[in-house]
Amino acid sequence: MNGFEDHGFVKLDVGREERTGHPEVVFGLGKTVDQVETIFARLVEVHGRALVTRATSEMAERVKAKHPDAEYDGQSRLIRFGKPFRKLPGKVAVLTGGTSDIPVAEEAAGTAEWMGCEVDRIYDVGVAGIDRLLTHKDRIREASVVIGVAGMEGALVSVVGGLVRRPVIAVPTSVGYGANLQGITTLLAMMTSCAAGVTVVNIDNGFGAGYQAAMILQLVAEAD
Amino acid sequence: MNGFEDHGFVKLDVGREERTGHPEVVFGLGKTVDQVETIFARLVEVHGRALVTRATSEMAERVKAKHPDAEYDGQSRLIRFGKPFRKLPGKVAVLTGGTSDIPVAEEAAGTAEWMGCEVDRIYDVGVAGIDRLLTHKDRIREASVVIGVAGMEGALVSVVGGLVRRPVIAVPTSVGYGANLQGITTLLAMMTSCAAGVTVVNIDNGFGAGYQAAMILQLVAEAD
Amino acid sequence: MNGFEDHGFVKLDVGREERTGHPEVVFGLGKTVDQVETIFARLVEVHGRALVTRATSEMAERVKAKHPDAEYDGQSRLIRFGKPFRKLPGKVAVLTGGTSDIPVAEEAAGTAEWMGCEVDRIYDVGVAGIDRLLTHKDRIREASVVIGVAGMEGALVSVVGGLVRRPVIAVPTSVGYGANLQGITTLLAMMTSCAAGVTVVNIDNGFGAGYQAAMILQLVAEAD
Amino acid sequence: MNGFEDHGFVKLDVGREERTGHPEVVFGLGKTVDQVETIFARLVEVHGRALVTRATSEMAERVKAKHPDAEYDGQSRLIRFGKPFRKLPGKVAVLTGGTSDIPVAEEAAGTAEWMGCEVDRIYDVGVAGIDRLLTHKDRIREASVVIGVAGMEGALVSVVGGLVRRPVIAVPTSVGYGANLQGITTLLAMMTSCAAGVTVVNIDNGFGAGYQAAMILQLVAEAD
Amino acid sequence: MNGFEDHGFVKLDVGREERTGHPEVVFGLGKTVDQVETIFARLVEVHGRALVTRATSEMAERVKAKHPDAEYDGQSRLIRFGKPFRKLPGKVAVLTGGTSDIPVAEEAAGTAEWMGCEVDRIYDVGVAGIDRLLTHKDRIREASVVIGVAGMEGALVSVVGGLVRRPVIAVPTSVGYGANLQGITTLLAMMTSCAAGVTVVNIDNGFGAGYQAAMILQLVAEAD
Amino acid sequence: MNGFEDHGFVKLDVGREERTGHPEVVFGLGKTVDQVETIFARLVEVHGRALVTRATSEMAERVKAKHPDAEYDGQSRLIRFGKPFRKLPGKVAVLTGGTSDIPVAEEAAGTAEWMGCEVDRIYDVGVAGIDRLLTHKDRIREASVVIGVAGMEGALVSVVGGLVRRPVIAVPTSVGYGANLQGITTLLAMMTSCAAGVTVVNIDNGFGAGYQAAMILQLVAEAD
Amino acid sequence: MNGFEDHGFVKLDVGREERTGHPEVVFGLGKTVDQVETIFARLVEVHGRALVTRATSEMAERVKAKHPDAEYDGQSRLIRFGKPFRKLPGKVAVLTGGTSDIPVAEEAAGTAEWMGCEVDRIYDVGVAGIDRLLTHKDRIREASVVIGVAGMEGALVSVVGGLVRRPVIAVPTSVGYGANLQGITTLLAMMTSCAAGVTVVNIDNGFGAGYQAAMILQLVAEAD
Amino acid sequence: MNGFEDHGFVKLDVGREERTGHPEVVFGLGKTVDQVETIFARLVEVHGRALVTRATSEMAERVKAKHPDAEYDGQSRLIRFGKPFRKLPGKVAVLTGGTSDIPVAEEAAGTAEWMGCEVDRIYDVGVAGIDRLLTHKDRIREASVVIGVAGMEGALVSVVGGLVRRPVIAVPTSVGYGANLQGITTLLAMMTSCAAGVTVVNIDNGFGAGYQAAMILQLVAEAD
Repeated sequence: MNGFEDHGFVKLDVGREERTGHPEVVFGLGKTVDQVETIFARLVEVHGRALVTRATSEMAERVKAKHPDAEYDGQSRLIRFGKPFRKLPGKVAVLTGGTSDIPVAEEAAGTAEWMGCEVDRIYDVGVAGIDRLLTHKDRIREASVVIGVAGMEGALVSVVGGLVRRPVIAVPTSVGYGANLQGITTLLAMMTSCAAGVTVVNIDNGFGAGYQAAMILQLVAEAD
Repeated sequence: MNGFEDHGFVKLDVGREERTGHPEVVFGLGKTVDQVETIFARLVEVHGRALVTRATSEMAERVKAKHPDAEYDGQSRLIRFGKPFRKLPGKVAVLTGGTSDIPVAEEAAGTAEWMGCEVDRIYDVGVAGIDRLLTHKDRIREASVVIGVAGMEGALVSVVGGLVRRPVIAVPTSVGYGANLQGITTLLAMMTSCAAGVTVVNIDNGFGAGYQAAMILQLVAEAD
Repeated sequence: MNGFEDHGFVKLDVGREERTGHPEVVFGLGKTVDQVETIFARLVEVHGRALVTRATSEMAERVKAKHPDAEYDGQSRLIRFGKPFRKLPGKVAVLTGGTSDIPVAEEAAGTAEWMGCEVDRIYDVGVAGIDRLLTHKDRIREASVVIGVAGMEGALVSVVGGLVRRPVIAVPTSVGYGANLQGITTLLAMMTSCAAGVTVVNIDNGFGAGYQAAMILQLVAEAD
Repeated sequence: MNGFEDHGFVKLDVGREERTGHPEVVFGLGKTVDQVETIFARLVEVHGRALVTRATSEMAERVKAKHPDAEYDGQSRLIRFGKPFRKLPGKVAVLTGGTSDIPVAEEAAGTAEWMGCEVDRIYDVGVAGIDRLLTHKDRIREASVVIGVAGMEGALVSVVGGLVRRPVIAVPTSVGYGANLQGITTLLAMMTSCAAGVTVVNIDNGFGAGYQAAMILQLVAEAD
Repeated sequence: MNGFEDHGFVKLDVGREERTGHPEVVFGLGKTVDQVETIFARLVEVHGRALVTRATSEMAERVKAKHPDAEYDGQSRLIRFGKPFRKLPGKVAVLTGGTSDIPVAEEAAGTAEWMGCEVDRIYDVGVAGIDRLLTHKDRIREASVVIGVAGMEGALVSVVGGLVRRPVIAVPTSVGYGANLQGITTLLAMMTSCAAGVTVVNIDNGFGAGYQAAMILQLVAEAD
Repeated sequence: MNGFEDHGFVKLDVGREERTGHPEVVFGLGKTVDQVETIFARLVEVHGRALVTRATSEMAERVKAKHPDAEYDGQSRLIRFGKPFRKLPGKVAVLTGGTSDIPVAEEAAGTAEWMGCEVDRIYDVGVAGIDRLLTHKDRIREASVVIGVAGMEGALVSVVGGLVRRPVIAVPTSVGYGANLQGITTLLAMMTSCAAGVTVVNIDNGFGAGYQAAMILQLVAEAD
Repeated sequence: MNGFEDHGFVKLDVGREERTGHPEVVFGLGKTVDQVETIFARLVEVHGRALVTRATSEMAERVKAKHPDAEYDGQSRLIRFGKPFRKLPGKVAVLTGGTSDIPVAEEAAGTAEWMGCEVDRIYDVGVAGIDRLLTHKDRIREASVVIGVAGMEGALVSVVGGLVRRPVIAVPTSVGYGANLQGITTLLAMMTSCAAGVTVVNIDNGFGAGYQAAMILQLVAEAD
Repeated sequence: MNGFEDHGFVKLDVGREERTGHPEVVFGLGKTVDQVETIFARLVEVHGRALVTRATSEMAERVKAKHPDAEYDGQSRLIRFGKPFRKLPGKVAVLTGGTSDIPVAEEAAGTAEWMGCEVDRIYDVGVAGIDRLLTHKDRIREASVVIGVAGMEGALVSVVGGLVRRPVIAVPTSVGYGANLQGITTLLAMMTSCAAGVTVVNIDNGFGAGYQAAMILQLVAEAD
């Protein structure tokens, strides 16, 4: 469980893959481009793969200069490099309430894929037009884990939670205005809803939801 | 528009019926039993009918001692006396998300009835079991106005708002715990939802929703 | 009630007009210009009319390139296209507390007009100079529905609620500073006021108020 | 400016009358009956008069056992003893929005009277029936200082502020429910209102308003 | 997916077991003893097993009068009846930060057991004495799912999240005072922590955590 | 009391001077330059003097183009024009806790001067160096009204309130960071302080404090 | 650093004294009387001394039945047993803003004494009568550490912070009402104040302040 | 204790060094470049040393033009000039939870150094990889005072508080997003944690923590 490397501004958790199944993921927000570059390079050296979240295009350029195979997606703000250690069983359905929630959903989907999950994207199925959601009922029920991403349509996860026999992970987004309070309202509403089987991550934390979904499928893979 | 009577602790708005179509309604919370008794008696004298909200059973006993025909309902906490001035057209559907929201729903229903509305009660149709709601879709669509009462299942009004061609009035309730914040979360979530055609009243304010529904139907009645 | 079209990033609710009386309205905030253009074009094809709220001037330019008859108003940020299905009966009065509340009021007014309502604008009648409001008392009373738009002067709807026999819809605005909390204070104050007959929509949600007013008048039109 | 007496649990500010014109006032909340008794006795000894706010009936009984001329009023929760040093000029109008706000208003009125003010009580003139207030317009304008006490009807002070040429002091009360947030909403709304000439004290702080009114009239008395 | 029964005050979701794998669970809070009794009896009739959360001892007595085999635990406030449909694979570790968090942990553990999980209880291992937690590191790592229950020691789940290769479910509790804000602080802190693999349920919602853990293990059981 | 002029976007309260002693003051925030220009011109025509608060330099340039005698101060953001109707008796002391609070203090001072008050500025006397304040004790006591302006040093008004026999008006400012919550903390702290004789206005509302001070001195002037 | 004992509901940190200098302290709130009794007995066995905070009188009775020398103080709610390991150098001054803050101050003082500190109590020296505080300036300056305990008079620590060359620890209390928000306002205000040298503990956390003071003096004792 | 100099916009506390051991420190935020320049020059004249916090690079350039030996560090935003009066005994350990917390940590470290402390920086040791922290356990225990700086990893100080026999000062940072609420969540969580021996300063207030650490070591230095 040891294996931290001391680079001064960062203590790299190079033992994390052994402990948890996956290398440390770099949270780009608040780091300098130089810091991201250094950490990324070292992670690739050690693990052969790396993931940066909340990356700016400037970070992406710098990283790709040295690692041309790294992929950057401006919508999800992920820099991804390398193949997953193994393909995880089952499927993760990622739903959004509206079109504006898609960037956060892509962070969830991209993270889960990088960790070895198959992802099924079902976007813009908020409950204000309930048939949009019900039309995809069977597809949603086939998923092993469901991620519901919504800002103004937090109700989405309440409805889904009552439809499936699988864990549901809710991601409130900061999409909205006024009484939305930058997502706090949706976060709290998702928690207070009485649908059993729903847990919640931080506002706009698509990464956290994708990661948890992969943890669940890793359990399935290792359960035998 | 004048016609206020000065009783010291209260300025009775005896001209309100002429102005708005209905006598002043007595808000029981924070008033003494003596105060309620005095106001009630004078309202009956002037208008021949009266309504007290948030009434205690002690208030009800005192009022009924003098007005044996007054009716008190412990669940809605309403004291009602007298017939509505006229029967209003159409129908008001009152929905609840759960069983615990029924007392607030009864305040809404009882108020609307006292004002002349016909009411259709459809209780415990929260979205965690979406078929409960969809089963009653036609019945809900027949209503002229829909009142949605919910504490933990605020999502109810988002779904209903997208189903009907009629105004929807949302009543958040204080039923719930933790992240519910005594109803504040549900209040804000009902506002931030993107269902058009939904307006919101204060937490547990069944009276306000019933009153607004009656105002709408009064408009219909007087529109010709 | 079906009739959703799947465009990937959006599930167009083309059956909405049949269900609710009006086509789906496009909420511009958080959508890309490309997305708005695609949705707009398809809505016009299906319904012959369309409405975009919170539109930027860039969205407007793109839309007008293909639909020269579309109208954009920079104050209300609405793009409107096409005639209402029918003229609704009665009149909607739109009031503001101050001059700075006018943009939100115009969103309400423009939405209601697009849906077929006649609108009477009565601006800058906040209660700090109560005679400004009382002077227009008769005009306000003639309206079928009253919309009160106010940021610092939330008191406006309390006063109006006691004057009329018609439903009042309150729109808190984010105009103000300090203790105003970007409109949250006014939103809550409008709810806690004891004026019966007032319901509230989200901060700056002129659209929601205009839509609800039209729903009420649609009921009147279809009530016979 | 000195003259504090050290009684261990309290440092009595016996020099306060010289400094500010009035003896220290005892805030009963959170003090034991013994503590109130001790402080009261000493204040009477030094100044010949004393005032306790937020007094319980048990405190009142104990105090009256030794000072039979002390007066206790259960509504305002004030224990008052002794005559004001002098009669202050002018008049203080104390208004309430509703009947339930009267106890706080009585704390304001009783404090101002104990300090030498003449008080004019105008209760239950909330703006939901605006004529109740306008009927008393002249009486309100005759006051030197106006105190507006309201929980659900914070709008009251906005209207009054625009009517008079005198300072207005607003007292939010905790009367209300739900979105009222125990008075916080009304407190903030009173501040965000755009009526010039209105200042605000803490929730339910009738004492503070009465005291400030007396300070203003003391200035008038000593201005010559 | 149909199969709702209409009992007026409740629409019983008798089809829920088929849909989700488990019968509807009765949330006792806010229901009357009569309501709980009726619902419980019908659930037992249909499914042969039932669970009530937030049950009072009065509810338990009434239920046990008719169903002597029902078990009530005053700490977790659960009424449990019947055997799980099958034993789920793996193990759920339930941790608490302190002794006072145990009642919520017992709700989680009891729910998971009723649904067929094996539970390992590891209580009072908050991080203020980090060796308490580290001593049980191997035991925690053997679990398939970890539930962390904490009021003042929200840090617990941050530490655990970094130690395991399994999903972690955090339950904030309302244990604490002052800045704890009845659990809201811990709820938000659990979300803002940067430990990947942690999701959160409502304050004191042991049931929700136990339910989600069982959903995950149900997936494992049905994954083959 | 009438005399409102309808300019569409604004209802000018030209009767305000007669009612309250002073012309309507223009709140610049949220108004366009054109609107300010129109209102300013009309106010000067009617009253011979005018005041704009929260004015931008662009507003000032436009106004000065037509009224070269108008004065603009970039720190207080006031545009002032014309002489006060009369000199008011006494003196207003304006204190600040720190240097950064000076712009708000200047808004208070400039407003009071425009209304006829003499002002004594005593800046940077926060309590973290209590002798700074005590050194000016006599000067503060000579004032008829004291205005205390502070963001991080809200304690200032608590200390001053206990030193003087005159009304104190507190202005919380948004100066500060973190726990200051853009001034909300200071606003609430000023209210909760137990210094009698202190009332509070909105955050950064120097205008409101200056106006209230002038109202008090107008009372003194007209009291005879 | 090991030495935890597993009693199921509690993992006793018997190694804490060696690690930190003092035995684990028992936080009584939320524990049962049985739990407190068990823990207390074991702590006394191991360390020869023990401290319980937030103890009820029932807990005290039970503990004293077995340990007659244990002392319970109803005001501070502390159960103390045994002598400190050594007398710490210097002196801790404990100040309160008002009389109602004394119970929290006594928790601080009692804790510090149990840990070996000498305590100087200076109560009711809030800044609303600033001379009360200044009179004791020299006595305060003689202390090695100053603890300031205040609910409504948070300003106290701002003033003290600027007077001394020693660390100041602020304890906000929940004494107050309305805008005080059960102490949250004072907590935040103490943080936002610009007095350097002040740190803050949780609301009503006298224990935490006393403990930190002892930690500082322990450093002094061990610094040589 | 006197010795304030009146420069109009600032009352320089030139007696502060004598009173507290250190010159007044200039808080740059909200001051103009001119004001900082003036104050800095005078402080250097009087004390031979000066410190500016929250300084912009523009302030730094202006100051260095006259005082070329002044040092500016863009990360900590400190301008430092002059040697400490004496070297303080012991050592201050400054820890961060993550890389993004380093700027605030540098403000703490730089302040403490300017005041005469030796500082040991231990960065990026958040608890999500607990071994990072435990690896440095001995180094942390050698410190006389520990400062813990963290935004998303507030749990850091809970763990540290249980490891050491020295005072711990927590600095919440605004690093984070969503539920972090710009640091408020971490601030409150640090307070509600049950680790004894931890006190807290304002969000991002590295200066306050460094200052308090120096106050503690000054006490050690002067304790003999």
